[in-house]
Amino acid sequence: MFQGLSAKKERLVAGLMSGTSGDGIDVVLVKIREQGTAAEIQLVAYDTLKFSAPVRQRILNAQGAEGATAREMILLSSYLGELYAHAVGHLCKKASVGIQDVDLIGCHGQTLYHHPRPEKLPGFSVTGSIQIGNPAVLAERTGITVVSDFRSRDMAAGGQGAPLAPYLDYILFNHRARGRIILNVGGIANLTAIPADSPPEAIVAFDTGPGNSLMDLAVSHFTQGKGTFDQDGAWARAGKFSFPLLERLLAHPYFKLPPPKSLDREEFGNPYLVKIIEWAGAMAPADVLATLAQFTVQTVAAGIMEHVMQKGRYEELILSGGGAHNPVLVEGLKAAFPRMSVVLGDAYNMPSRAKEAVLMAFLANETMNGRCANVPSATGARNPVLLGSITPGANAIDPP
Amino acid sequence: MFQGLSAKKERLVAGLMSGTSGDGIDVVLVKIREQGTAAEIQLVAYDTLKFSAPVRQRILNAQGAEGATAREMILLSSYLGELYAHAVGHLCKKASVGIQDVDLIGCHGQTLYHHPRPEKLPGFSVTGSIQIGNPAVLAERTGITVVSDFRSRDMAAGGQGAPLAPYLDYILFNHRARGRIILNVGGIANLTAIPADSPPEAIVAFDTGPGNSLMDLAVSHFTQGKGTFDQDGAWARAGKFSFPLLERLLAHPYFKLPPPKSLDREEFGNPYLVKIIEWAGAMAPADVLATLAQFTVQTVAAGIMEHVMQKGRYEELILSGGGAHNPVLVEGLKAAFPRMSVVLGDAYNMPSRAKEAVLMAFLANETMNGRCANVPSATGARNPVLLGSITPGANAIDPP
Repeated sequence: MFQGLSAKKERLVAGLMSGTSGDGIDVVLVKIREQGTAAEIQLVAYDTLKFSAPVRQRILNAQGAEGATAREMILLSSYLGELYAHAVGHLCKKASVGIQDVDLIGCHGQTLYHHPRPEKLPGFSVTGSIQIGNPAVLAERTGITVVSDFRSRDMAAGGQGAPLAPYLDYILFNHRARGRIILNVGGIANLTAIPADSPPEAIVAFDTGPGNSLMDLAVSHFTQGKGTFDQDGAWARAGKFSFPLLERLLAHPYFKLPPPKSLDREEFGNPYLVKIIEWAGAMAPADVLATLAQFTVQTVAAGIMEHVMQKGRYEELILSGGGAHNPVLVEGLKAAFPRMSVVLGDAYNMPSRAKEAVLMAFLANETMNGRCANVPSATGARNPVLLGSITPGANAIDPP
Repeated sequence: MFQGLSAKKERLVAGLMSGTSGDGIDVVLVKIREQGTAAEIQLVAYDTLKFSAPVRQRILNAQGAEGATAREMILLSSYLGELYAHAVGHLCKKASVGIQDVDLIGCHGQTLYHHPRPEKLPGFSVTGSIQIGNPAVLAERTGITVVSDFRSRDMAAGGQGAPLAPYLDYILFNHRARGRIILNVGGIANLTAIPADSPPEAIVAFDTGPGNSLMDLAVSHFTQGKGTFDQDGAWARAGKFSFPLLERLLAHPYFKLPPPKSLDREEFGNPYLVKIIEWAGAMAPADVLATLAQFTVQTVAAGIMEHVMQKGRYEELILSGGGAHNPVLVEGLKAAFPRMSVVLGDAYNMPSRAKEAVLMAFLANETMNGRCANVPSATGARNPVLLGSITPGANAIDPP
């Protein structure tokens, strides 16, 4: 087994990402030649399939330390496996690619709970993370070998299991002459800072704080679930931010920690929004949104000032994720860093929307190449590790 | 990756099993040459490591549809990963085998919940099963490639994900002239019936009902947790079984289903014992145990009469699992089948206690050989599938 698949120098790989905001599934097809810093990644096709409102609600309900029972977890996991398989089939059709030509799928899965703080049990301290989206269902439906559960191995080596982006960021964005900060504003916001002309060990990377999650949840709250995000930042732009509320949000203990650090994925989730709404009192909804947008901008800016800029010079801030489409966030960041050029990831031939799914495809491919793809300086792991578990598709079986 | 490991004709494989009764970890080392019906399996060493009482209790509490939160599930999963790694290291030491000489680990994991009945969600019917015991922790600690999550793929193909034993049973016990029934009495009891001189498709296999689980739980109940099982059947032998209580137990709807069928692992767990204790009223503890022993004997006997004997002739009943050490069960089965020879699995150079862990080692090895190892006539799957997900150890990386 794996003799043919593993020996390939070029693979067609599908990548699947569905973020904590529960919006839907980002799916990509990429052609990857070679590996490591020699890798060439060509985006063949991408798309986003939105979850229906009831499915999204079910996913949101299942998140958190106590969000889901074992029963709900395994049923929802198999269900997402079906939806992921459908997404891969859909994109192949759209791109006129035969599904039998796809070599590999990298599937992040849907994070339900992430627990990077070591917990003492008799004899051992343990951490853990759970991403659902049953890889057995995905491999069985598609016939393609699946790599999934990318965070557990880094955590088993003492890391936080996040961020995973720095490895790909380095491959795509390291530059002889320019220091670059790659900022992804998804449900949460994370960055990778790559000084000019340096090895991967010089990378600084961490979650800065909330990205869009609180804004998305607030819009959903104020519209009784009809709206799912602040389109074009319209709400935030219409409102004025409240300084007292912002101060309260900035007092969260996470912002005092030094990197490497990563967020429990549900930290800035629904229960926290409920608190915020309480703190907001009689504030107008648009003012709450303006405050939350400012919260994201300020925590990104503070993270960069305190933990990145102090260590080197950076010329570019490259912005990706859903937040790159929110002009209020983009303008806020431009104002915070007047001397850096703020550019959208799209400028680098990599649409923001596709980037995390491309990351999953790339990490899967590196695992199939036997290459460790965590960045210990970013995750805090003791050593580099092979990421993920491999669920063999029919295409893993060698002809007799 | 996998080029060296996958090409091996002979592997040293560790197998890990921890049953629903939460007793402890069965660990084996086996040498396996070749594959499929040509496979030769040689047991090198085996041992059982008991869980401490608090760990056992924590596992029992986590079982069931709603037994564990996401938090408890992932922490306990990583913790069991540590204990499994310890068990492999322990057995290697005991057997004077270098851990770097082990090629592969097959790890069943600890079942928390098994849901084989299809559940309708929008667009898809789904099933699911969860076995904890983090394979990333196991692979990282040992450096050995791990195969785990053996049930999900069969379920993805429409099967019940159980029983898994028939494939190995067939390899070990198929016989030209003798029809054989292989009965494993673990927490639950399952059998594989192999008619004389037949292909794997002729196998009948299913869970007959409870094995030791209810007896174990009852002893624990009556001794306030001090006892964990009915040693030598002493309690059952001292008591008399109650016919009314037995009739009530036999009325459970599972016994009316035709095979292929498998039990939700928690069906005969703690909540059911609570009911039994209530039904038992003022009955003496020994009488409850005698009734539960009779319950296991009767459901095994009825399963064989109704679903096995009607289709063929069988000469041998080969008994394995913890129940093979309970003389009350053994005598009960001998009495039920006076014309069959009832033998312990040990007679076949395979100690009862080691058998399920050997199964895990063998299934892992077949997956690494690219061989499908479910038996669709036993599980109800639409087709044969590759079982498990592979978490690569450092030993999966080929030298440059």
